[in-house]
Amino acid sequence: MLDVLKPHYPNAFDFSITLADLDEDHRVKLTVVEVDKKTETVILVIEGRDIHYDAIIEAIKEMGATVHSIDEVEVEGTNSTV
Amino acid sequence: MLDVLKPHYPNAFDFSITLADLDEDHRVKLTVVEVDKKTETVILVIEGRDIHYDAIIEAIKEMGATVHSIDEVEVEGTNSTV
Amino acid sequence: MLDVLKPHYPNAFDFSITLADLDEDHRVKLTVVEVDKKTETVILVIEGRDIHYDAIIEAIKEMGATVHSIDEVEVEGTNSTV
Amino acid sequence: MLDVLKPHYPNAFDFSITLADLDEDHRVKLTVVEVDKKTETVILVIEGRDIHYDAIIEAIKEMGATVHSIDEVEVEGTNSTV
Amino acid sequence: MLDVLKPHYPNAFDFSITLADLDEDHRVKLTVVEVDKKTETVILVIEGRDIHYDAIIEAIKEMGATVHSIDEVEVEGTNSTV
Amino acid sequence: MLDVLKPHYPNAFDFSITLADLDEDHRVKLTVVEVDKKTETVILVIEGRDIHYDAIIEAIKEMGATVHSIDEVEVEGTNSTV
Amino acid sequence: MLDVLKPHYPNAFDFSITLADLDEDHRVKLTVVEVDKKTETVILVIEGRDIHYDAIIEAIKEMGATVHSIDEVEVEGTNSTV
Repeated sequence: MLDVLKPHYPNAFDFSITLADLDEDHRVKLTVVEVDKKTETVILVIEGRDIHYDAIIEAIKEMGATVHSIDEVEVEGTNSTV
Repeated sequence: MLDVLKPHYPNAFDFSITLADLDEDHRVKLTVVEVDKKTETVILVIEGRDIHYDAIIEAIKEMGATVHSIDEVEVEGTNSTV
Repeated sequence: MLDVLKPHYPNAFDFSITLADLDEDHRVKLTVVEVDKKTETVILVIEGRDIHYDAIIEAIKEMGATVHSIDEVEVEGTNSTV
Repeated sequence: MLDVLKPHYPNAFDFSITLADLDEDHRVKLTVVEVDKKTETVILVIEGRDIHYDAIIEAIKEMGATVHSIDEVEVEGTNSTV
Repeated sequence: MLDVLKPHYPNAFDFSITLADLDEDHRVKLTVVEVDKKTETVILVIEGRDIHYDAIIEAIKEMGATVHSIDEVEVEGTNSTV
Repeated sequence: MLDVLKPHYPNAFDFSITLADLDEDHRVKLTVVEVDKKTETVILVIEGRDIHYDAIIEAIKEMGATVHSIDEVEVEGTNSTV
Repeated sequence: MLDVLKPHYPNAFDFSITLADLDEDHRVKLTVVEVDKKTETVILVIEGRDIHYDAIIEAIKEMGATVHSIDEVEVEGTNSTV
């Protein structure tokens, strides 16, 4: 569970699709928790086998957003949720 | 999950049917959260395989309604919920 | 989910049976939320395949009741809940 | 779901058994919500196939109790809950 | 569900075992809700096929306790919970 | 469910293992509810077939702890939870 | 369930992976509950067959963190959760 600050574009739908497409079995859930003039704060949950944390952070940055904090991590064998 | 402002007609039932008919496997849930004189605010959850976000927005506009915000997105493989 | 104002008779039991009998697979749930001298406010949930919204409204009116508002709609293929 | 005012005797156990025995597949749940000197208010949920509302009311009266109100009804095919 | 006032001995564990042993398929759940100097108030839930209410009351009395009230009864065919 | 006052050592992990090892099928859940300078209050739930209450109390005492109260007991055939 | 104070690095993701890798079937869940300038307080739940408590404590220390308290323990046969 990541706390992320993103600009309005790409919108939440395109933003989620991009992260889900990073790997074949990624499941992405995005919840908008606050909307400001130019930005919105979203909570991201990304679930998958063999998650590459750095690649996710990289993709988030490329869309103009920043990760404020990691709020929750779950690891079970090769599956993880961040 | 979309936050939408719609006029009273088409009513919530016809509005939902129209969005569900956009594609064969769409599942639509509409909840009215506020009713005003000429409009009502509804929360829409649309679930399906290979959702076309732009087609949904288009259909919503054609019924005289506007999308205020995307509140939640979930993507898993080719299935998404918006 | 419909918000309905009905007279005390037909009572909640007969009222629900009538709506359930409109079609073979209708499931009806009625909850009384307020009781006044001559009327009662009830929340109706009607679930079924191929629901005919107009026929339901008609049956409700014939029993002397009126639909205040549609509060929730769910559509999935040919099944709907109103 | 029926809101019922009953005398202390027959007690809640015997009262429930009597209603459950009205028909072979009746399921009865009784919850005492208020106890007064001579009476107690109970919430009754009666579930079964092909429920005869009038026979239930009759049996309740014969035990010296009265139905204050019907609070909830659920009908699905020949099964109902009152 | 019975509201019962019992002395501290037999303790809650022995008290429950005694009631469970009244019949072969009895399931007993005891929750202590208040502890006083010489007594404790417990909530008893007894579940089984063909429950003999009078035999339960008798056994409770023999252990020096008294039933304050029946709070809930559930009857389904030959199974009941008191 | 037992309300127990224990010293900090043996720690909650070793304390639970000891009780679980009393019999082959014991399941033990320990929750710390208050921590003081020299002691901690824990809630213990012990589940198993044919539980020996006295043996549990004995083991608890041998680790320097005392049972304040039994809060809940559940008995079903030869299985019990205390 | 362990209450742990850790420095910001290794981050929550790497921290969890390290603990999960201690044994083949470890399942780790980490929740950040408070973030300070140089440290963060996290709640750790570690589940597995034959958990070695001391090895976990050791690994936590090696990453510069300290265990404040054990909040919950569950033991069932050879499986435990701490």
